[in-house]
Amino acid sequence: MLSSTTGIKKYYFDKNKKLLVFCWIPATPCGRCDDCIAFFRSKRSGSDDFGPDLKLLKPIEMATETQFFAGIPKIPYVLDAEGGDVLCFKHYNAEEVLMGRRMEDWLRFSVCYWHTFCGTGADPFGLQTQRRPWNEGTTPMECAKKRLHAAFEFFNKLGVKYYTLHDRDLSPEGMTLDETNRNLDEMTDLALELQNKTGVKVLWVTCNLFAHSRYMNGAATNPDSHVFAYAGAQLKKGLDVAKKLGAENFVFWGGREGYNSILNTNVAAELKHMANFFKMAIKYKEKIGLQCQFLIEPKPKEPCKHQYDYDAMSVIGFLKHFGLEGDFKLNIEPNHTTLAGHSYEHDVVMASVFGMLGSVDSNTGSPDLGWDTDQFPMDIRNTTMVMKTVVEQGGLQPGGLNFDAKVRRESTDLEDLFIAHIGAMDAFARGLRNAVSIIEEGVIASMVKERYMSFSRGIGQKVEDGTASLEELEDYVIQNGEAKVTSGKQEKYETVFNHYM
Amino acid sequence: MLSSTTGIKKYYFDKNKKLLVFCWIPATPCGRCDDCIAFFRSKRSGSDDFGPDLKLLKPIEMATETQFFAGIPKIPYVLDAEGGDVLCFKHYNAEEVLMGRRMEDWLRFSVCYWHTFCGTGADPFGLQTQRRPWNEGTTPMECAKKRLHAAFEFFNKLGVKYYTLHDRDLSPEGMTLDETNRNLDEMTDLALELQNKTGVKVLWVTCNLFAHSRYMNGAATNPDSHVFAYAGAQLKKGLDVAKKLGAENFVFWGGREGYNSILNTNVAAELKHMANFFKMAIKYKEKIGLQCQFLIEPKPKEPCKHQYDYDAMSVIGFLKHFGLEGDFKLNIEPNHTTLAGHSYEHDVVMASVFGMLGSVDSNTGSPDLGWDTDQFPMDIRNTTMVMKTVVEQGGLQPGGLNFDAKVRRESTDLEDLFIAHIGAMDAFARGLRNAVSIIEEGVIASMVKERYMSFSRGIGQKVEDGTASLEELEDYVIQNGEAKVTSGKQEKYETVFNHYM
Amino acid sequence: MLSSTTGIKKYYFDKNKKLLVFCWIPATPCGRCDDCIAFFRSKRSGSDDFGPDLKLLKPIEMATETQFFAGIPKIPYVLDAEGGDVLCFKHYNAEEVLMGRRMEDWLRFSVCYWHTFCGTGADPFGLQTQRRPWNEGTTPMECAKKRLHAAFEFFNKLGVKYYTLHDRDLSPEGMTLDETNRNLDEMTDLALELQNKTGVKVLWVTCNLFAHSRYMNGAATNPDSHVFAYAGAQLKKGLDVAKKLGAENFVFWGGREGYNSILNTNVAAELKHMANFFKMAIKYKEKIGLQCQFLIEPKPKEPCKHQYDYDAMSVIGFLKHFGLEGDFKLNIEPNHTTLAGHSYEHDVVMASVFGMLGSVDSNTGSPDLGWDTDQFPMDIRNTTMVMKTVVEQGGLQPGGLNFDAKVRRESTDLEDLFIAHIGAMDAFARGLRNAVSIIEEGVIASMVKERYMSFSRGIGQKVEDGTASLEELEDYVIQNGEAKVTSGKQEKYETVFNHYM
Amino acid sequence: MLSSTTGIKKYYFDKNKKLLVFCWIPATPCGRCDDCIAFFRSKRSGSDDFGPDLKLLKPIEMATETQFFAGIPKIPYVLDAEGGDVLCFKHYNAEEVLMGRRMEDWLRFSVCYWHTFCGTGADPFGLQTQRRPWNEGTTPMECAKKRLHAAFEFFNKLGVKYYTLHDRDLSPEGMTLDETNRNLDEMTDLALELQNKTGVKVLWVTCNLFAHSRYMNGAATNPDSHVFAYAGAQLKKGLDVAKKLGAENFVFWGGREGYNSILNTNVAAELKHMANFFKMAIKYKEKIGLQCQFLIEPKPKEPCKHQYDYDAMSVIGFLKHFGLEGDFKLNIEPNHTTLAGHSYEHDVVMASVFGMLGSVDSNTGSPDLGWDTDQFPMDIRNTTMVMKTVVEQGGLQPGGLNFDAKVRRESTDLEDLFIAHIGAMDAFARGLRNAVSIIEEGVIASMVKERYMSFSRGIGQKVEDGTASLEELEDYVIQNGEAKVTSGKQEKYETVFNHYM
Repeated sequence: MLSSTTGIKKYYFDKNKKLLVFCWIPATPCGRCDDCIAFFRSKRSGSDDFGPDLKLLKPIEMATETQFFAGIPKIPYVLDAEGGDVLCFKHYNAEEVLMGRRMEDWLRFSVCYWHTFCGTGADPFGLQTQRRPWNEGTTPMECAKKRLHAAFEFFNKLGVKYYTLHDRDLSPEGMTLDETNRNLDEMTDLALELQNKTGVKVLWVTCNLFAHSRYMNGAATNPDSHVFAYAGAQLKKGLDVAKKLGAENFVFWGGREGYNSILNTNVAAELKHMANFFKMAIKYKEKIGLQCQFLIEPKPKEPCKHQYDYDAMSVIGFLKHFGLEGDFKLNIEPNHTTLAGHSYEHDVVMASVFGMLGSVDSNTGSPDLGWDTDQFPMDIRNTTMVMKTVVEQGGLQPGGLNFDAKVRRESTDLEDLFIAHIGAMDAFARGLRNAVSIIEEGVIASMVKERYMSFSRGIGQKVEDGTASLEELEDYVIQNGEAKVTSGKQEKYETVFNHYM
Repeated sequence: MLSSTTGIKKYYFDKNKKLLVFCWIPATPCGRCDDCIAFFRSKRSGSDDFGPDLKLLKPIEMATETQFFAGIPKIPYVLDAEGGDVLCFKHYNAEEVLMGRRMEDWLRFSVCYWHTFCGTGADPFGLQTQRRPWNEGTTPMECAKKRLHAAFEFFNKLGVKYYTLHDRDLSPEGMTLDETNRNLDEMTDLALELQNKTGVKVLWVTCNLFAHSRYMNGAATNPDSHVFAYAGAQLKKGLDVAKKLGAENFVFWGGREGYNSILNTNVAAELKHMANFFKMAIKYKEKIGLQCQFLIEPKPKEPCKHQYDYDAMSVIGFLKHFGLEGDFKLNIEPNHTTLAGHSYEHDVVMASVFGMLGSVDSNTGSPDLGWDTDQFPMDIRNTTMVMKTVVEQGGLQPGGLNFDAKVRRESTDLEDLFIAHIGAMDAFARGLRNAVSIIEEGVIASMVKERYMSFSRGIGQKVEDGTASLEELEDYVIQNGEAKVTSGKQEKYETVFNHYM
Repeated sequence: MLSSTTGIKKYYFDKNKKLLVFCWIPATPCGRCDDCIAFFRSKRSGSDDFGPDLKLLKPIEMATETQFFAGIPKIPYVLDAEGGDVLCFKHYNAEEVLMGRRMEDWLRFSVCYWHTFCGTGADPFGLQTQRRPWNEGTTPMECAKKRLHAAFEFFNKLGVKYYTLHDRDLSPEGMTLDETNRNLDEMTDLALELQNKTGVKVLWVTCNLFAHSRYMNGAATNPDSHVFAYAGAQLKKGLDVAKKLGAENFVFWGGREGYNSILNTNVAAELKHMANFFKMAIKYKEKIGLQCQFLIEPKPKEPCKHQYDYDAMSVIGFLKHFGLEGDFKLNIEPNHTTLAGHSYEHDVVMASVFGMLGSVDSNTGSPDLGWDTDQFPMDIRNTTMVMKTVVEQGGLQPGGLNFDAKVRRESTDLEDLFIAHIGAMDAFARGLRNAVSIIEEGVIASMVKERYMSFSRGIGQKVEDGTASLEELEDYVIQNGEAKVTSGKQEKYETVFNHYM
Repeated sequence: MLSSTTGIKKYYFDKNKKLLVFCWIPATPCGRCDDCIAFFRSKRSGSDDFGPDLKLLKPIEMATETQFFAGIPKIPYVLDAEGGDVLCFKHYNAEEVLMGRRMEDWLRFSVCYWHTFCGTGADPFGLQTQRRPWNEGTTPMECAKKRLHAAFEFFNKLGVKYYTLHDRDLSPEGMTLDETNRNLDEMTDLALELQNKTGVKVLWVTCNLFAHSRYMNGAATNPDSHVFAYAGAQLKKGLDVAKKLGAENFVFWGGREGYNSILNTNVAAELKHMANFFKMAIKYKEKIGLQCQFLIEPKPKEPCKHQYDYDAMSVIGFLKHFGLEGDFKLNIEPNHTTLAGHSYEHDVVMASVFGMLGSVDSNTGSPDLGWDTDQFPMDIRNTTMVMKTVVEQGGLQPGGLNFDAKVRRESTDLEDLFIAHIGAMDAFARGLRNAVSIIEEGVIASMVKERYMSFSRGIGQKVEDGTASLEELEDYVIQNGEAKVTSGKQEKYETVFNHYM
């Protein structure tokens, strides 16, 4: 049966919705072998027939090397999966082409190393809840290596092509900078080996300049130049690592670059130091021939009371003030955007408008919570808004959609890591499909175009060109009198938008 | 052709998507009469054929008496309408039966009188933008009557069976209480006539005890007993009106019952006065034999800095403190819920859990805005959550879903009133369909049931019954040791939930 | 007795703390005449003696021309006034010199015309509560003139030297632009006359480009170029008015420059139009030789869902993007700052750091409320923080402290207008005194200086100069090892700060 | 000299404001001995004279047993200390009598064990920063004992009479419940010994039912009855500990009693279980004869998305629903109050109004931050508002003011623990002094009384008594017509309030 060349693969759940086995369903089932018996029982049909609504389109392969996620296969795309089926994609079909590009190229998903492999479930009010097999070991380096193997198994099974990392996620800090850097060398050797073996790539590297106690008062904005120097030394190594691993981007997130009390802070001095830090980074990047995009990730607050990189516009203002806007783009995290008091999509849109949208940390918060919850994005409206902007600007490359998201502290099963990523990938796949429909049908676009039409002729054209004067505008009003009141039709836009949801 | 007994009705748009005409399509069109020529040109088919995908299920009738909304027909349900079609229901099919009840009986939609017919578009920073033909008249009473006619035309065309009103929406305040009450008598006579003629009913009446300057420091909580008396006199008449119009509910919203400065406020005295006010209402209701449900509508703040009816639990605490919980239920407005720092569905759920959910003001705010925007609810996730709770508690009757929502200040076209209501009704219809699927398939319910299973046996059962003691619990632990860590599986729940969206 | 040449003036209250009369107390009272009998009964002394603690330093003059505020004298500075005395300054002593400058020159208080003379107490849930005698008249222009006379009586009695206005506060809008402008000409003639007579000056003028329905979708960012033109015509006249009245600043507040729905908005186009609008303003200002400072006033939201001028950094980013930063400074309103999610003083500090702090709208919100309440600033901590920044940057001139604040809707007495301004001026006077103590004693400044000391030598100096490289920083760490953990001592700073409160 | 019976004690700082030595200044100094030479150099006098402004009122004693805070003396009250002096009280004078009660009896300060002795400075983005000598040891129990000794040294030097603790702060959790309880027995023996030796007492005990992974899905609301049982067993021991240590209160804070996802939660079941948990606690308390007050501490969110004990009114509603209101009062934490969207003092006031204010966790958050920062309360306005309520209700006993506050992560010096507590105690002492002035002078109270006067006569009296009917109210209005508009005078109240600040 398995030698049959036509047919489909199926997956099979027991009554508790636990995944039991995946199997290949031949075009003409024999009805006797396990592959034919183990099949998808559609509630809709209520029968065991392989009816025409079976649409398992892609072959499912069991991972050959399974070390940490033994019961989990390579996640398949199953078009007609049921409500309780959560270990398959229902919407994300990597190879499917939309608007001339494959889904995986529009979406450029990336798994983050810190939450998914280093997270423990500890929170400010609670201890570790998540005990991972890759963290069982006798030395930090042994764990680090197991963790890296687990990660690549995960990337493969999930079918994601990118990952992101802080230097200190990958490799433990030693007693001295030298020891730390040697650890990093050893770990990046292994990472490179696994990257080459699997084809998985680094979307971006960043330096953790916020967790160690030395950085508690800031890294590039620390009042002590010794700490600043330490941050610089760490950054230098981080840029070397980015080059070694072929990272397509390098991110700066200044979690401690801000203040907790304005009373003890010289803001002007700190901003200048931060700008000088970035300038040194640019020089060193050029020196070593590192070909990646630099990204700044805004966040308004937490851990600081106030962070200088508050939101997209704050960073743009800072970059322009110090003449750095040509060397950086933004990595927007919507959970940070909402913490800054904006709507989910705001910073993605604003960064795109200013030509500064480089990458997206695809996560979400809860609007009723005032801290960074880093939840997996599950709201289709939100993913649609983001993907509409992304498609309209022609994609995110070399950036991507990085899941800077963690399973809830209470989600302690290993499979929860898969379920969460799958749910979020499907949410973004639906967002992409919706956005493509919106853009291809063009109903909203043509409504907007019509709305601004007056700027393509007459006095509007002169305003657009910047050639009008206040005197001319006054003349226009004297001749044409009062302007019409024109409905903004927000509810119509919302209703049309909902049509594509 | 029109005498044909089989066939479907169609609607026809011009190139600008303006609705031109509705027509009846016979099963076998002649191809010559207007009814056959005027049809829906599907973009999908691109042709004029009446293909099998034409699914206009319900006859469309032009309103016979059109006074204010001349170009708008009775809104039809059009299953295969396109993105740009916004003057038809795509999901709300009033007669369709789900879980043994018609959609219109699950949803019990109501149009609010104040926003939709009295709104002007003025906001704290701007003047009137919306000029309505029914407000053009020479006396307040003339306008009031035109407004009422407009409202019933609107109810009819929209196909909504209920409306809600403040006493002062319907009828202008006079120079004295007596004049005011005579106005009200005259207007309620007309309302009753129109109700009888159309079958439209009153979901609830409420007294406006917040807009007049006399109530600026509170009505039932005013520091001046003269104002309290005025509020009582107005309430008496309001209850009479409720009886006269057959209102199924009566709502108390205490917009000025709270404080702006704690320094000038005797909170204890004010709460007691408010409770006494409610007690008088109960007595008078009994006296006149008014058969309606009393509802309190919580709101945390705005216009006051702090309102006593902050949220569902605050009101429940207040009611129980003063022994009033048997006489009131809650009218929950989600825009108020989110202003109180909760998630959209929170107060709906909590009120339902405490057996106090009486009705819902179906609107929404924006989570990034800190004031009551009273937007039309367009988010399918939110409507699904609300309808899941409503269906689970067996419906809202005698309450309903009242659109306490206003078109945006910039939505100045008359048709925007329709588009907004249609979009929101469709959003709730989708929410209902989703909720019914969730409940009927039972995947989530069985996951939850399994989660709490341990309380149906052994020590859990004793806890449930309230017969366990701390000593027994200790014994149980001594015998059974440490408890298992069990995943909460939030991402799985979210993913399953998304399946039904 | 009144001819005596030495002595002090006193004021006298009745038992209800109502101000009865002001009188002159001779150095040696006769004890028989009314002037000697009517005196200040100090609770502290408990006697009627004129002891050494009588410190009424400045003569009190009854206003010679009283039209609207008949019972209110020129507000005196009374050092030892009691708790219930609210019609005198207890801290603000205009002529007193601190750090080489008079209090009135540090504080540069200004009364705003819109709230204080045009406000009615109406709010989104309520009608007018405040009926002002200057609004009683038969034509809009008659009221406008009475209002202006009332305003100047108020300025004089309060002892404030500046006022601020929108074009439409001063003068009613007519049926046409021409009529509107003629109204404005007539009203500015009168304003100029009153300014010359009293010495009161205009701190700033601004155009109201947000209240009229034509601007509902924006003024400079309206999708209709006709509206843009109207805004330009209005701005032209506004700049003419600024020149005529000798305004020291001109403010742009873009209440409608933003969006309510991202779906119907072309952000890029709108931002460009707004920049072009500003460029035309600059050109016209130069053309007419207007010598005032241009200010942009940030606000995050309300009335729009999102305003482009979100906060100080957003505006700085915008200005720098369009090359406008040389022509504008910022007018910071702390109530807007807190609505943007920052602390009260944040935007004042940030604007100052970037050399962009031009003026301050000295008001406050409540941190638990999500809309602009425009309250009078009464929190001494906040006023101290603002004045510390202001004194450190050498003052605000030509900007000032404009009371963009309104008495609460429930504060319906005419005297409340005085009490509110007096309370706020005293709060700022205390803030100034505290700030001066902090700066003169230098305890905090020396703690901060010490904190950043390492940047004035060695590797720190090179970072400061921008001459260090990552390689040098690494060398430094290799030689010097780990950095010290140095306490940020926030609680010490807070405790020291409290010492000066 | 030291044998002199009259004189004052002084303290002496070096140039860096480090406290060097305390000494006793005789009434007539000899000028030769160290006690006479070491004195306070007042900047104001600029001389070494012991002028009349020396007001060191209380003798200073060096601690006899110093183990962990070697350089720190018993903190003195120094009336005329300078800005930079932060190791003395400037306002808190424990023995001073205000309104018939000593300051320490009004304020009943308590140090919390968890933050101050167990805190490490770790936060969600960073590792430990604070290394305490009492945490250096070879076994958990050794550290626990050192920690307890450090704590009592701290209490003594600070002069605070109460402390608060979780069971798990005091004593480490073992591998089994039995081992855990044996640890606790050993530690409480030592605690009792130290309490007896020093006179320091336990304000309250609480059980940590939130940090361990077993409680991640709730303790009393856990879906697994096994976990519920574990929580019950732990609570039983906690109540035993409270009895043993003579705790005056017992607090329940349900950090995990709520939900993170409404989808996986049966709210009704969980609330019932929580109520049953409380009922078991009441029974056991009675059984063992524990004489302390039970307190529930509301918190709206964090760590949960939503906690059932959201705020004061939510808890009151819950207690009344389940008939528990006679057995509990509330422990209000203002940082929780502001997270619930209220003003700082709101829950303190509301709990007091309902007769439910039992104790206060005296800390603060930042209104611009959305998580629990547990900062030391430094805002005098806030402390005044709280103390006004406390004094008006006659004090908090047996509750108190517990500093549930932690030094900032960056405040790494041991002395920061003292500075923070001293600053906060002084802030509350100022609040108390202000509140007493406000109450004793009675200006605000008489304004408020006057405001509600109409309820003590006529129709108002009937409303107050609950004997009025709507019909009577209507009659009153018919006879008396329209009510007066009476100013709420908020700005006057604020100005008068500021007078006492």
